[in-house]
Amino acid sequence: MEFSSKLLQRAVNEMSQLPGIGKRTALRLVLHMLRQPKEQTMMLSEALQAMRNDVKFCGSCHNISDKNLCEICANPNRNESIICIVEDIKDVMAIENTSSFKGLYHVLGGKISPMDGIGPHDLNIESLVNKIKEGKVKELIFALSSTMEGDTTNFYIYKQIQEYQIFTSTIARGIAVGDELEYADEITLGRSIVNRIPFENSLKL
Amino acid sequence: MEFSSKLLQRAVNEMSQLPGIGKRTALRLVLHMLRQPKEQTMMLSEALQAMRNDVKFCGSCHNISDKNLCEICANPNRNESIICIVEDIKDVMAIENTSSFKGLYHVLGGKISPMDGIGPHDLNIESLVNKIKEGKVKELIFALSSTMEGDTTNFYIYKQIQEYQIFTSTIARGIAVGDELEYADEITLGRSIVNRIPFENSLKL
Ligand SMILES: [Zn+2]
Ligand SMILES: [Zn+2]
Repeated sequence: MEFSSKLLQRAVNEMSQLPGIGKRTALRLVLHMLRQPKEQTMMLSEALQAMRNDVKFCGSCHNISDKNLCEICANPNRNESIICIVEDIKDVMAIENTSSFKGLYHVLGGKISPMDGIGPHDLNIESLVNKIKEGKVKELIFALSSTMEGDTTNFYIYKQIQEYQIFTSTIARGIAVGDELEYADEITLGRSIVNRIPFENSLKL
Repeated sequence: MEFSSKLLQRAVNEMSQLPGIGKRTALRLVLHMLRQPKEQTMMLSEALQAMRNDVKFCGSCHNISDKNLCEICANPNRNESIICIVEDIKDVMAIENTSSFKGLYHVLGGKISPMDGIGPHDLNIESLVNKIKEGKVKELIFALSSTMEGDTTNFYIYKQIQEYQIFTSTIARGIAVGDELEYADEITLGRSIVNRIPFENSLKL
């Protein structure tokens, strides 16, 4: 693609670094910005900078947070004896939107995936095990997507915490196997939380 | 959508102001940024700011430019006696990519569209007529998209410059009627420039 302006070219190149944004889409977005008031581009770029510079991860659940403890973990009305294990913060948002869960979360930051070079130590598993050792947790809900990597991760964690004899469950599979949690409709996802089953049952032990 | 971080929420909201970017896509993009090195977000936001603050429009053809005169207008190897009239700078880029045109451009900045409240005076038409009055231009190529608005705009300009008796042409309609120029493949678009026909012929006068 030939550009008449280096400034434009740089903006398009940077935009097209984002996943799913090709050169053509990037150009369309950037030309849109040129037609909008200057303030809008400034507000966007400042919001991105502030987020990237100042966003924190909750010291307890690893959810994105503006403080050291996220609003969910800091909320005294949440039930700290139930922890729902999710892959990433999009899943927290998806479950929160259903208003069906009043416990806490634990964000793993991914799934065990040897193909992608992601092992247990690349995920927030140790802090989860430590939390369980403290003895306050009574139930652990596995809410990873039901892919091979999700199942592997569930089972790995299950083995790690087995000795502490807490109740483990998985969300009910109203959600199609292989589907991503974040794309499930709210009702299905809400029901799958309410109708969760003991983790052992999901293994057909 | 519930957010655990105001910084994240603001970034998602600003991103979703862009056309075709919904809240979900914005969230996906912003979370991607959080996984990438900080420098990448800084480079993106700085590129957008620099572009929005410093980009100029060529004083002659209204193309996007880093200087007062764009690189095409400033190039002594371009034939200044042929001017190709296009709607916006994406069309300049599309035609330049075909390497089939060595004249200059004139970017109107849109099409006459009474429905959208865009009249001739909202477009860069006066500067085009002035250029033609100077007497250096021998041929004018109409390369607007072949929609009703494109045809209206062509005809309006044609009427304005008729008295100067320069040769007018339209790009050959290898491009499907109603299609946007920027999505045409390079070969079709290149041929349609080479096989351009006198504008009068396109009116079936
Ligand atoms: Zn937290
Ligand atoms: Zn120019």
